[in-house]
Amino acid sequence: MTRNQILAVGSVALDSVETPFGKEEEALGGSATYFGASARFFYPVSLVAVVGEDFPKKHLDLMKKLGVCCDGIKVEKGKSFRWQGFYDYDLNSARTLKTHLNVFASFKPALSVKDRESRFVFLANIDPDIQTSVLRQVRAPSLTACDTMNYWIKNKRKSLVSLLNKIELFLCNDSEARELSGEYNLVKAARWVLSKGPKLFVIKKGEHGVICFSKSFVFLAPAYLLEKVFDPTGAGDSFAGGFIGYLARASRINEAVVRRAVIYGSVLASYNVESFSLNRVARLTPADIEKRYREFKAITRF
Amino acid sequence: MTRNQILAVGSVALDSVETPFGKEEEALGGSATYFGASARFFYPVSLVAVVGEDFPKKHLDLMKKLGVCCDGIKVEKGKSFRWQGFYDYDLNSARTLKTHLNVFASFKPALSVKDRESRFVFLANIDPDIQTSVLRQVRAPSLTACDTMNYWIKNKRKSLVSLLNKIELFLCNDSEARELSGEYNLVKAARWVLSKGPKLFVIKKGEHGVICFSKSFVFLAPAYLLEKVFDPTGAGDSFAGGFIGYLARASRINEAVVRRAVIYGSVLASYNVESFSLNRVARLTPADIEKRYREFKAITRF
Repeated sequence: MTRNQILAVGSVALDSVETPFGKEEEALGGSATYFGASARFFYPVSLVAVVGEDFPKKHLDLMKKLGVCCDGIKVEKGKSFRWQGFYDYDLNSARTLKTHLNVFASFKPALSVKDRESRFVFLANIDPDIQTSVLRQVRAPSLTACDTMNYWIKNKRKSLVSLLNKIELFLCNDSEARELSGEYNLVKAARWVLSKGPKLFVIKKGEHGVICFSKSFVFLAPAYLLEKVFDPTGAGDSFAGGFIGYLARASRINEAVVRRAVIYGSVLASYNVESFSLNRVARLTPADIEKRYREFKAITRF
Repeated sequence: MTRNQILAVGSVALDSVETPFGKEEEALGGSATYFGASARFFYPVSLVAVVGEDFPKKHLDLMKKLGVCCDGIKVEKGKSFRWQGFYDYDLNSARTLKTHLNVFASFKPALSVKDRESRFVFLANIDPDIQTSVLRQVRAPSLTACDTMNYWIKNKRKSLVSLLNKIELFLCNDSEARELSGEYNLVKAARWVLSKGPKLFVIKKGEHGVICFSKSFVFLAPAYLLEKVFDPTGAGDSFAGGFIGYLARASRINEAVVRRAVIYGSVLASYNVESFSLNRVARLTPADIEKRYREFKAITRF
């Protein structure tokens, strides 16, 4: 029987990040982590990922405390996935200093009987072949979404385009949209993506906000204006968490729901970048979320 | 007696522009030109500028046909101001190939008796000392605005900062806001600018829209999504024309009026970039403007 949860498959990692405002070593990170910490405000989330034996227990304890199901996080022999990145004052793009895939290199998720029944699926940025294999294991999802990155666009293009035909919702950033479609203009890039299968296409533009395309409407949302952006790591996955979480909670998905979902995604992303790792989002309350949602109304209404 | 017109001082020029979509030689351009062609939809405009004897009569005839008062455009011995620029696919920033100031180099505007009575003043991007001298000649303006560029921020910083204390409304782009304030973060940059005098500060971010700051509110407007941007030249001045034109037409300026004015500015800028020179804006109708204003509502509401 279909299970009311969002299955999120992606990375659970140890991030070392330096920004002009500070640095953090081996903090809790990863696409599935950021997604789950945001989506849990709206809907039950179950993560599927892999970590090494060295993965700090406190990190998994935190995720569980936040209400995120971690039964699908496998602990394997070896070291955890580590990412080291650096941001300059232009916080929109990370410079990757080191990527050690470690146990993540042989990640081949086999879903539990429960997870196969998930009603919603988010395939965070991993190899599109793995994304496809996970999707195949879910019996009857009512909404499926995926993200990607330039590496897969370049090296697994065919698999990725084939995956687009199997999902309803595709998210990526503006440069990825351009690279994937071969179109510099984002309207043309969106038309290309929508022709490949997805019903909704969300282009994440970092500090410049989000554009959500469907065949019947376009919605533009700005990013929240922050005086202090501490660390943009995870902003895109936090957005996806708020966005898909809100869609999952809605009894029916229509245009008005999608627009509000984009704003909830933007709210979560804006809180996430206020601190390193999950420091801010872990302390967030539903009241904080509603407050910023109203602020989005105030800064955009005319 | 105060005259119901916007006095706009700036350049009237011959632009040679190349973009990935075409090129145009010695077309009608200049900051005052673009401003006037947009503002005229909302309020009477009088231009103050200088051209050379070689300036094609058809260009001035067009401006007059559009209802823009050109009595303050002086024809001087010598050649007209010429600008040659190039845009790559990233249409957000122009590469200047040639700037020949010609008669513009000795531009020292002396206002007519009529223009001294202007109710509204827009000082387009010229030497802040000239902007200041023009402002001094206007007897009792009820709203004054200015734009600038990185060249003046670097070379006439003191004059520019002193001018900020004399005007109500300041416009510039994001990189200029950063350079002028010394703050990378735009919220901080805005606080700096507002502390220098202006009541309103508009940061133009090209394809990423506009942020309007006052001491009591912030308004974020996206740029209209276009499938074809032909030539971004004049987008900022077209924005200023729609924005200040709408403010001038309003009987009273309050927050709601300012927000709508930002959208009207964005509407005019979006039409302007659809073609070279004034080709699109010269053919524009009030119905076109209202249509796109409603589209801005549709793409931003939630």
